[in-house]
Amino acid sequence: MDNRVNLTSSLLENAVEQLTMLPGIGKKSALRFAMHLLNQPIENVEKLGQSIIKLRREIKYCSNCNMISDSPLCSLCSDKKRDYSIICVVESIRDVISIEKTNEYRGLYHVLGGIISPMDGISPSDLKIDNLISRASKEPVKEILLALSASMEGETTSFYLYRKLKDFPVKISVIARGVGFGDELEFTDELTLGKSIINRQPFIPNT
Amino acid sequence: MDNRVNLTSSLLENAVEQLTMLPGIGKKSALRFAMHLLNQPIENVEKLGQSIIKLRREIKYCSNCNMISDSPLCSLCSDKKRDYSIICVVESIRDVISIEKTNEYRGLYHVLGGIISPMDGISPSDLKIDNLISRASKEPVKEILLALSASMEGETTSFYLYRKLKDFPVKISVIARGVGFGDELEFTDELTLGKSIINRQPFIPNT
Repeated sequence: MDNRVNLTSSLLENAVEQLTMLPGIGKKSALRFAMHLLNQPIENVEKLGQSIIKLRREIKYCSNCNMISDSPLCSLCSDKKRDYSIICVVESIRDVISIEKTNEYRGLYHVLGGIISPMDGISPSDLKIDNLISRASKEPVKEILLALSASMEGETTSFYLYRKLKDFPVKISVIARGVGFGDELEFTDELTLGKSIINRQPFIPNT
Repeated sequence: MDNRVNLTSSLLENAVEQLTMLPGIGKKSALRFAMHLLNQPIENVEKLGQSIIKLRREIKYCSNCNMISDSPLCSLCSDKKRDYSIICVVESIRDVISIEKTNEYRGLYHVLGGIISPMDGISPSDLKIDNLISRASKEPVKEILLALSASMEGETTSFYLYRKLKDFPVKISVIARGVGFGDELEFTDELTLGKSIINRQPFIPNT
């Protein structure tokens, strides 16, 4: 009954149905979205609808790092102010955005498009690894920074990449694991806490 | 910085910007939506985009009750199986949907399109009241059920409608106020609790 309530308009029913395609959005939120859109100026709703269609239709991926891009080479790979000697390897486009937000990294990226996961049927051949090897073998690359999840799959992928890259004249590094800012020691798992002790750093007072 | 992070694609930036038009959706959720849409089949994204544009462009409002509709008369007003002798007056389209979900009401509706609120500059002339008066004065209407919010504005509107309708040969009723199912007495406000005692009902055991 709840799902088949008469909304008195097939246009509304259809829009609600379509809006549930969005992640985490059920019928109730979809109805809220639709009702809100009905109260917006028609031009704004057209802009919204067209912006997502245009995004999906026209998006390109950078031929160098596989990041989303409007042109064959993305704005990061074509930015002359970036450090071309280091490539940060990540699983997804969202990871690039997260790292960019930190404002702590000025090198280039390489988006794998996933991580090795036999459980999900994702093997190395499904990822953009060949492309990474070819980049790593060329000047001016000096360092490959592995920034994958600290999960079983992430570790497996890091190890796989390490084996593929170790004979190239590049330094292979990995992002630091440790207790996060705001985390309580008491609730930090032993593996993370152990790593944070092994990889301890000189204390620099914040004066 | 957080808001102006480089997403390497103006298409993505634009879609994210547009998606924040949805109620309760900030930049972070909008980005999640956009990334999700990038992984969907192109036809599905087109269907979604077009469904909201079509909804906004082509929606009609029932000439009788002001409910959304695909035709001049909505599916409720044109449903011969409904009870034409009672009209339930509500603030918004969403209220109609909520009442329909209860499956306890088979009469018609009248959507006011708001409630009287001097604070928000909404006066009786901004609402579909004339239309209601004209419906109430015609056969076969016998009862007007006021189902407005239990707020100051709702009470004001109910009182205004009562004064406008009291000289017509219709019964004017109001939905029951009381302690909701699942509510605890301890946390129920005095006004509601008081009303629920005044309007107490014969106890019918659920055997």
